[in-house]
Amino acid sequence: MKKILCGVDMGGTKCAVALVSGQGIIMDKIQGCAHVDLDDDGRVEMVVDQIRELLTRNQLEENILAGIGVGCAGHIRFREGIILTTSNLTGFKNYPLRERFQQHFSIPVIVDNDTNAQALGEFMYGAGRGYRDMIFITISTGIGAGIIMDGKLYRGQTGTAGEFGHTIVDPESELVCTCGNRGCLMACACGRALPHLFRRKMKRGMTSTLDFPPAFNMDKISGQVLKKGLDIGDPVSMEVISDSARYVGIGLYNLFQVMNPPLFVLGGGLTHWGDYYLSRIKETFYELARDMIFDPVEIRLSEIIDDAGVIGAAALPQEQGI
Amino acid sequence: MKKILCGVDMGGTKCAVALVSGQGIIMDKIQGCAHVDLDDDGRVEMVVDQIRELLTRNQLEENILAGIGVGCAGHIRFREGIILTTSNLTGFKNYPLRERFQQHFSIPVIVDNDTNAQALGEFMYGAGRGYRDMIFITISTGIGAGIIMDGKLYRGQTGTAGEFGHTIVDPESELVCTCGNRGCLMACACGRALPHLFRRKMKRGMTSTLDFPPAFNMDKISGQVLKKGLDIGDPVSMEVISDSARYVGIGLYNLFQVMNPPLFVLGGGLTHWGDYYLSRIKETFYELARDMIFDPVEIRLSEIIDDAGVIGAAALPQEQGI
Repeated sequence: MKKILCGVDMGGTKCAVALVSGQGIIMDKIQGCAHVDLDDDGRVEMVVDQIRELLTRNQLEENILAGIGVGCAGHIRFREGIILTTSNLTGFKNYPLRERFQQHFSIPVIVDNDTNAQALGEFMYGAGRGYRDMIFITISTGIGAGIIMDGKLYRGQTGTAGEFGHTIVDPESELVCTCGNRGCLMACACGRALPHLFRRKMKRGMTSTLDFPPAFNMDKISGQVLKKGLDIGDPVSMEVISDSARYVGIGLYNLFQVMNPPLFVLGGGLTHWGDYYLSRIKETFYELARDMIFDPVEIRLSEIIDDAGVIGAAALPQEQGI
Repeated sequence: MKKILCGVDMGGTKCAVALVSGQGIIMDKIQGCAHVDLDDDGRVEMVVDQIRELLTRNQLEENILAGIGVGCAGHIRFREGIILTTSNLTGFKNYPLRERFQQHFSIPVIVDNDTNAQALGEFMYGAGRGYRDMIFITISTGIGAGIIMDGKLYRGQTGTAGEFGHTIVDPESELVCTCGNRGCLMACACGRALPHLFRRKMKRGMTSTLDFPPAFNMDKISGQVLKKGLDIGDPVSMEVISDSARYVGIGLYNLFQVMNPPLFVLGGGLTHWGDYYLSRIKETFYELARDMIFDPVEIRLSEIIDDAGVIGAAALPQEQGI
């Protein structure tokens, strides 16, 4: 029985390639950022070389692998494994990623969205164990969801289901998303929105107690900066974090009304804001849902913090019944 | 082979009981409003009598029926067939409707939400034929959705999935929903919101060209009244209809981003506003979705105008594999 899985997690900054056991444990991994500056085909070649290197240095043959699962940031046409567009990575427009990988291997290659891969990782080996249905939400540079229904990823017609960050939660908002629309959840709550949200609080007369160096570029306000602010009790940081939590809470509530899942798992960089953030998300959610909840609905943090993407990607062939 | 189906559609004003052919054609029907004033058990007895009457007058035995499907307005715990709460009907709080019906019949009884039943009707015999996935939206006194995935209704954990009318589309709105939350789609766009929406336009200085009788109670502003307004070009009616269309369009867009379906079917009383309404819903949807649509997404009006509820209810046992 083929028990070894291989996962690739290609994101906007980091690319990880790993051999993963059938229990979801990373056996060996190569990780780097070199893919960012390569062209489309160059990225494929790099990853193929890394998979071969992992096999060689672990004295394994290709056919010990059940398959190769690739998670990639962007809109993916799932059945064909084509990257339609990417959000945080240049290149890869209408790029047949699965086919290009497949040319190098005799075992099946599956390509999916990176958030779907993370969702699958949490579902199989993390916070979702024991459930048949869950919704995974990543709150990071952007916001996205991976929907598990009856033990399988729900992908929709094209494969782009779960683009939760583009749902509009405040149509009258002045905040504009990268997609061009106004008041998307992403525009109101994600990592990319933080500089704008912070500056807006300052413009409205709030004073931050964060000790910025002179000529600090406010565009560098990030989740980490606000975490520092939270630790020292900076009122601006705390309000921005609360506002983000409120919008995420509204978004979860909307998902709850439409899909009625038993579990939400939250991951992504901004969840490092910890309990201050999570408790406010929950507060908004349960306040809105109140007497419309008839069975327990859990909101939990992800358990596989750093490697959910690559572990989940490795599980994609399994999820497809391979 | 049992080819005759039996459906019950119990709504806030009307209760229909029908024998339906395997092709979704109504063979005989009893319809009335008497259930509104009966108590919970009285409603069951009335419907049981009507089913027996339909069988008798068509010279049929109970066992010719494949099963009985009941659609009822409200939150339903699907597996047990318990009505948790109702929206437009008094009584029926934690009422074991399925069990009470089942006591009277040896054939299986299935109880579901009325919007789910309508969705199933449209899916099997109406605007959804030929699809495997679709989302049905009813825009009427309230707003709700029925989600069909891979040829089956998606109900979620409890059975309350599709409560689309309670998704929040404008959290800063002054409009409060029957659920108590602010800025639900229902609060902004459904039949129940029309008097408030109309009055608000007047307060802001608009003048209606509708010829209201003296001392007309503005609470009676309904879909029909606005239809008249639309026909004579009343600017207030037209703006209220446009506003409703915009919010419904945003709601559909949000569903699209989360679920990526190929088809939306719109039904319910407010769709009688016709092309003026539908074209504005579509305009908002396609403007927001633009280059994020990679496969055709259709928005259509329902085809089974009056009887989708009872025809769809009749198909519930089939959908459950009975």
